[in-house]
Amino acid sequence: MTDDDFMQRAIDLARAGMRKKAGGPFGAVVVKDGAIVGEGSNCVTSKNDPTAHAEIQAIRHACEKLGTFSLEGATLYTTCEPCPMCYAAIFWSRVSEVVFAGDRKGAARAGFDDNILWDDIAKPVGTRERPMRKVSDKVANALFDEWLTMVDKTPY
Amino acid sequence: MTDDDFMQRAIDLARAGMRKKAGGPFGAVVVKDGAIVGEGSNCVTSKNDPTAHAEIQAIRHACEKLGTFSLEGATLYTTCEPCPMCYAAIFWSRVSEVVFAGDRKGAARAGFDDNILWDDIAKPVGTRERPMRKVSDKVANALFDEWLTMVDKTPY
Repeated sequence: MTDDDFMQRAIDLARAGMRKKAGGPFGAVVVKDGAIVGEGSNCVTSKNDPTAHAEIQAIRHACEKLGTFSLEGATLYTTCEPCPMCYAAIFWSRVSEVVFAGDRKGAARAGFDDNILWDDIAKPVGTRERPMRKVSDKVANALFDEWLTMVDKTPY
Repeated sequence: MTDDDFMQRAIDLARAGMRKKAGGPFGAVVVKDGAIVGEGSNCVTSKNDPTAHAEIQAIRHACEKLGTFSLEGATLYTTCEPCPMCYAAIFWSRVSEVVFAGDRKGAARAGFDDNILWDDIAKPVGTRERPMRKVSDKVANALFDEWLTMVDKTPY
């Protein structure tokens, strides 16, 4: 299978999801060792889950299927340039490469404008769209201390 | 209930999650109209889900419980400053305010360093840690055209 085949599957997932009213027109697949190991389409409105973007769904599906939280060596094909949430999820999941078709301009034209978020997330805490208030970190630091002393934890 | 009470619940969730080996030492709650409507702790390693950070879990739980994909008017309490993925999820979920205790320095000390990602996500596509390759957007734009002509869609 080629790049085109994998992207075609992502496109098919996007179209099917949109037509069955699962969510917006976005699809994604995760490919490892030449085979699709995870699939997803946007399900924000049908699942009442604002995190259910196509890329996140595909990453979750692939990890569940492979029984791992690391997708190192995998490629994610997505019908549209990932938003900051999805790029960060790609980063944490250790997906090695991203191939995308539509871009943020095309998405904005369809009513999915993430430029505000791209600008916002680059700002320092305290100056962003969503107010962020820091309280004492004493107890949180006690949690970190406990974590550091645990001997049988699974680090990641 | 006060700020301290809500943060205490998030701390309790973090501690319980860490001790039962669900994942890292992070907890979060979503509060709306003075009551906790969603709870979460980090479950990355136990659920094999790299997106299962405490904030994401709490947002998904709250949305499921309230039957909505919008948490406008809600406050999210989290034991640690949200990473870029969680900040973006907060943004998309329309949570109105964030209260956090530990910060990225404390998290880095415990082995959860997200500074690389904060730096990386601010870079233009094509210069980031994860290579991103754009292919033709022709078919993706056809998807957006179809979306724009749908009359009975649920916009978000």
